[in-house]
This record gives sequence, C-alpha cells and structure tokens, in this order.
Amino acid sequence: MSISKKIKETIKKSSWIRKMFEQGAILKEKYGKENVFDFSIGNPYMDPPEVFQKALIEISNDQSRFIHSYMPNTGYPHVRKAVSEYISGEHDVEITENEVIMTCGAAGALNVIFKALLDPDDEVICPAPYFVEYSFYVDNHGGKLKTAFTNNDFSLDIKAIESEITEKTKAVLINSPNNPTGVVYSQENINELSLLLQEYSKKLNKIIYLISDEPYRKLVYDDIFVPSILKGYNNSIICTSYSKDISIPGERIGFLAVNSNAEYKDDLFNAMAITNRILGFVNAPALMQRIVPLIQGVCIDVSVYKRKRDLFYEGLTNCGYEIDKPAGAFYLFPKSPIADDIKFVSDLQEELILTVPGSGFGKPGYFRITYCSDDEIIIRSIKGFKKIIEKYKK
Amino acid sequence: MSISKKIKETIKKSSWIRKMFEQGAILKEKYGKENVFDFSIGNPYMDPPEVFQKALIEISNDQSRFIHSYMPNTGYPHVRKAVSEYISGEHDVEITENEVIMTCGAAGALNVIFKALLDPDDEVICPAPYFVEYSFYVDNHGGKLKTAFTNNDFSLDIKAIESEITEKTKAVLINSPNNPTGVVYSQENINELSLLLQEYSKKLNKIIYLISDEPYRKLVYDDIFVPSILKGYNNSIICTSYSKDISIPGERIGFLAVNSNAEYKDDLFNAMAITNRILGFVNAPALMQRIVPLIQGVCIDVSVYKRKRDLFYEGLTNCGYEIDKPAGAFYLFPKSPIADDIKFVSDLQEELILTVPGSGFGKPGYFRITYCSDDEIIIRSIKGFKKIIEKYKK
Repeated sequence: MSISKKIKETIKKSSWIRKMFEQGAILKEKYGKENVFDFSIGNPYMDPPEVFQKALIEISNDQSRFIHSYMPNTGYPHVRKAVSEYISGEHDVEITENEVIMTCGAAGALNVIFKALLDPDDEVICPAPYFVEYSFYVDNHGGKLKTAFTNNDFSLDIKAIESEITEKTKAVLINSPNNPTGVVYSQENINELSLLLQEYSKKLNKIIYLISDEPYRKLVYDDIFVPSILKGYNNSIICTSYSKDISIPGERIGFLAVNSNAEYKDDLFNAMAITNRILGFVNAPALMQRIVPLIQGVCIDVSVYKRKRDLFYEGLTNCGYEIDKPAGAFYLFPKSPIADDIKFVSDLQEELILTVPGSGFGKPGYFRITYCSDDEIIIRSIKGFKKIIEKYKK
Repeated sequence: MSISKKIKETIKKSSWIRKMFEQGAILKEKYGKENVFDFSIGNPYMDPPEVFQKALIEISNDQSRFIHSYMPNTGYPHVRKAVSEYISGEHDVEITENEVIMTCGAAGALNVIFKALLDPDDEVICPAPYFVEYSFYVDNHGGKLKTAFTNNDFSLDIKAIESEITEKTKAVLINSPNNPTGVVYSQENINELSLLLQEYSKKLNKIIYLISDEPYRKLVYDDIFVPSILKGYNNSIICTSYSKDISIPGERIGFLAVNSNAEYKDDLFNAMAITNRILGFVNAPALMQRIVPLIQGVCIDVSVYKRKRDLFYEGLTNCGYEIDKPAGAFYLFPKSPIADDIKFVSDLQEELILTVPGSGFGKPGYFRITYCSDDEIIIRSIKGFKKIIEKYKK
C-alpha cells in the first residue's frame, strides 16, 4: 500500500465523476472544443471588473520593502479593517478587524473553521443538495457531515434539520445563494433555523454554530436580498471569497468573519488564527490581500448572469423541463426527466452537452447546469436538450 | 466547550512561545522598535530580485480572459513544465510536468503530501532539532511525528533514525539546509540514509518515503552543494517554495515534485492532486504561478546573508559562544551557555535581544538566532550577547 486508504477510497468513489469529465474531454477532442456545450464547471464567465485590474497594476508597482513578506497569520490589519467596515454595512451588524481572518478563499476558510471547531466524530449538518466538497472539509478534521433534504422548492426543511440534531452536532452549514440550486433562503426561513438552533443549544447545553458559506452573496437577481445570519444568531461565522463577484477564483482570496456576539469569541478567533497557520495556508496571498481594500463592494455586472439565467430558464421550460427559477449564483438545477440522473446526463452527452448529475450533489433525480457560457452557446444548446427530453416523452 | 479540544491544547502548549513574543512586543513598545534587536522571526531580509518585480508588472498587465480563473488543481501545465525542466537540471534527474504540483508554499505542499500518504497512526520520522510546525502537519492528517536527535554537528544520526523505524513508519522527513541549525547534509550522509530506508523498506515489505523540505536550497554559502534525494532514493518527494530565494513568503507559492521512479507514482500523484483540492488550497495562487516560469533559477544575492552570518558568527564566537558554523539558510543555532535555554533567552531580553529557545525546535540547551537584520543591528547587538554570557562565566 502506498497512499492513504481513505484517499484511495476517495479516488475510487469519485471515479464516475472523473469518467464523466474524461468523457467530456474526449468529446471536445473528437468534435472540437467549440462544438461541445460545456455547462459542467463553475468557472466564472465574466472578466474581473476594471477596478480590480487597476488595483492590481497599482499594487504590483508598489516596491516598498517587505510587501511580499509574512504578515500576521490572520492577514494585514488594514485589510481586515477594510473588510470589517464593509461587511458591517452589508450585514447591518458591527464587525471589527478583530473578528475577520483573511483566508485562501472560502474553501480555505471552511477548513480553518472546521479544524478549529471539531472534535473527533463531531457532526455538521448540511441541507442537501449541497456542494459535495463540504463532506471532505468536515471529514478532513475528524468530523462527520450529515445531510438533511431541503423542501421541494429547495428552501430549508427545518423539521428535517431538527431530526438530524444529536448531542454530537457542532454546527449547521448553509450556502445561500446555493450551489447547485441557486436558491436564496428567505429571512423567515433563516429565522426559523436560528430559533431551532437556539432551542437545541439550550436543550443540549452546548454551542451549535451556524456557518454560512456565501461566495455567491452578490450574485443575486430580481432585487432579492440575501438575509444575514450574523443578524439573528450569535454563534455564527460567515465565510466567502472574491472568486465569483470579482471573477478571480484562481487567486484564492477570501475571508471569514465571526459574529462579534459569539460566546468564547476570543478563543474561537485565536483557534482559527492557529489553524490557518498549521494547516499550511500560513496566510492568504499577500498581494491579493492588498488589493482587497480597493475592491470593497465592487462586483461584476450581474445583469449578464441574469440574462443567461433567463435565456436558459425560458429555453428549457419551453421544452418541458421542470426548474425552480434560481434567485442567485450561476446554476440551474432542473429535475431530470427520468429518475436516473446519471443516465440522463450521459444521454445529454450524445448531444455534446456536458452537465453534472444531481447525485454529485447528494440529490439524485436532478442535474446541474452552469451558465458560465456565451449567450449564443446557451441558445444553440437548447435544441439538444429538447431532443433528449422528447426521447422520454414518447 | 466551544473549540476543538486538540486546538485548545495547542493554544495552551504554545503559550510560553506566545508569552515570549508578547514580551518582545512589550520591549519594542517600551524602548522603541529600533532599539530592540529582534532576531526571532525568519522573515526574509532581502527585497525580491528585480527580475521578479519586472515579471510581476508584466503578468499584472496581462488582461487576457480567464487569467485569474481556476486551472487544474495541480497548477498550470506550462508552469509545471518550466519547474520540471529547471529542477531536472538542478537535481540532475529527469522530472516531467506530470511529477510536479504547484502548491501554496512548502507548508501547503507538506500538508498535501501527508494527507495523501498517512493512514491513522502512521509514523513520520524527523531529525531533531526541527521546524516544529512539522508536528502539526503530520498530526493534521492522523499521523505521529517521531524525532531522532542528530549528531553533535547536526548531521543525520543514522543509528538514531534506525532506532525509530517501526512497521508504522511511512516516511522520513528531512530539511536541508536546516531550520534552525543551517546545516546542509552531506552527500555521504544522504547516501547512508537512503541505504537505511532501502533496507527497511525491503525488511518491512512496504514503502518508506523520503521527503525533503528544501526552501533554503539556494541559500548556501562557501560553494557548498545541497545533495539531491531524488538522485539516490526512488520513493522520494521534494517540496519547496519561492519564499526565501525570491523573498516572497507572504505570496504562498511553491511546489512539490515526485521522483519519476517512485513506485505507484501515478497513484501518488493523483492522490496529491486530490488532497491539494480537498484541503481547501484548491490551487496555488494563479498570478504567482504565472510568474514562476519567469524566475526559474533566480535568487536574491546570497552574499548578503553570508556577510551577516560571518558577522554574527565571528562576533559571537569571540565572546565565547559555541556555534557550528552553518552552511546555509539564515539561522545560527548556538549552544546556550546554561542548560536552561528558556532562561537564557529570557536573560538576553534584558539586553533587548530577541531569540528563540532551542526547546521550540525540540532541542533544549540551544537557541536560534535569525540574521534577517541590518548589519549595523547585528554589530550593535554583540555587546548585549557578550554581557549575558559573561554573567555565567563568573
């Protein structure tokens, strides 16, 4: 045996996903990349805003001493201050730089959080469908991810979450706007969840944290507001990145923020400062950190994503697909016309259309479409979607 | 209980180190930063080379599409190719891009490696003194770090390493040039270690990996050559970063390379591609990756560090300190004139001199000096070092 048994198992388990991607690569090679409709990967479509490009050049020209050196593991104080001021406004709460840690994206932040929180076999509850990487992030640090199906409209099913709570529950993890459904949880829905966690924290005499992964917060349409968990639940932590709103996912820059009213807040903050270090992140990339104060509140033009969503939604519903119209992010999560979503996704490949089965998000019977493509590709793809659904209507 | 018990323990255990740093901060506030001789932190002294500054500006001005997007988790193919070509020459071996993974520094790389290799309770052997973060990196992934003292001249004590080998041994981790001693292991010493591991791999019928963490490879003086573990031992992995040779530690850019002759090489490579992703690194920062091909072989002027080493070495040995003259890195690791290194380091603080006790590197009775300071500060500090050692000579 050479590699870890667990990782060997991970490779084996993910082999059907890999096979699917390999199949996509084969199609691209065979038919030409431009003839394949690749809606499988969530790689932001837009260019970064001009403000970012300018800030990047400005920061890159700065040759002050020690500008690429280590800084405190939590990040540059002035960067954390800029972030805290912005999110205080965005969430209508009071957050200071002493509650913010700069991280290698939201994925880095989640690992920092779970490493700081979890004792062996602690449980984290997550509504499903969900971004499957969460199960790794929890498992990495000895925890166990338990899932609770959402309602049919993908809103939080509070009863389902309640039934997963045990004495081992350490946290509930939500993601809104959601990958893969695009749903934004309503204020009422978040309030219900907060009440539930308050009730069980008291009942079990322990802290149950509410963690919100929100890299798509700014990618919402139709004037929808994303409610803040920092407002209504004290033992809460948010994490996010600039990957989607600035379109820089490769740069690995994001942050986490702890609720200023959290119990044992200093313990928690110090723990995360240490886990950021010992997990090998050490600090978020210095240069990108220095850009952060210059891009607070900046976002790519969301109307472009909105247009793509509408194009796809109309095109697909016209052919008979059942879809809950998503309020945010850049995904559609239609119902698969047949129960076997893996087969259906494979059928779509006959039409050179690449999507991801809902099984890959803990929700069989659905499939995910990413609309990070040119309008023209979306429009051209509808014919193929139509052909495949009609095969099953007969 | 709010945070993880293990992290709570980590915070408690590291409290004396923190206290020491806090003491340093108090001294700086009380006497002025410029009057405190801070030799405690390994933050590179030099500015990045001009080649890097130019490359940074060039890359930052590139506004091609998707330049800040996700790329394969292992890194850009062209970047991995440039790295593989350079290290093939540097190590006199044949490494291809299919053996290189770009990482968030060497700390990121080590976590990626250990996560890929370790099953619960697997053991990693490391010569001591050692960079204590290693114990976290191994523990993060369920392993156990076992240490084996080096010889008095800090060379590898092969017998001591042998006596730590068990059926649970998964890897031996070395670091040359070494932090904290600055020692460079000789070719003969490395050969002995390779033979030992070959013998025990056969005897125990398993692979024992040899991992070399070598961020200081280019920081060597007196025309010393750092032997390559890739040359003499097939099941080997190197990791490094551009933190020290280019002076950009805050940017978190480095790589790992697997020996092209390693057994189950593809399994190992795939495993590390996955662990790089699921640990939340996802990929090394995109912009810094793109700079990497432009700075292959570039290094800050090591003669500056050499001069500082010589200044310190002569100044301190003249006062009676016992020091093995280091061949690389930017540390001195003198013997503490009294057995209690923590007390001695605390005594030095009376003279406003900040250093780190050997106990912080698993080697009591010594202390570490970092020479990332102006020459003038080094020269001025000698008086204080002299005063304290003379206290104990009486």
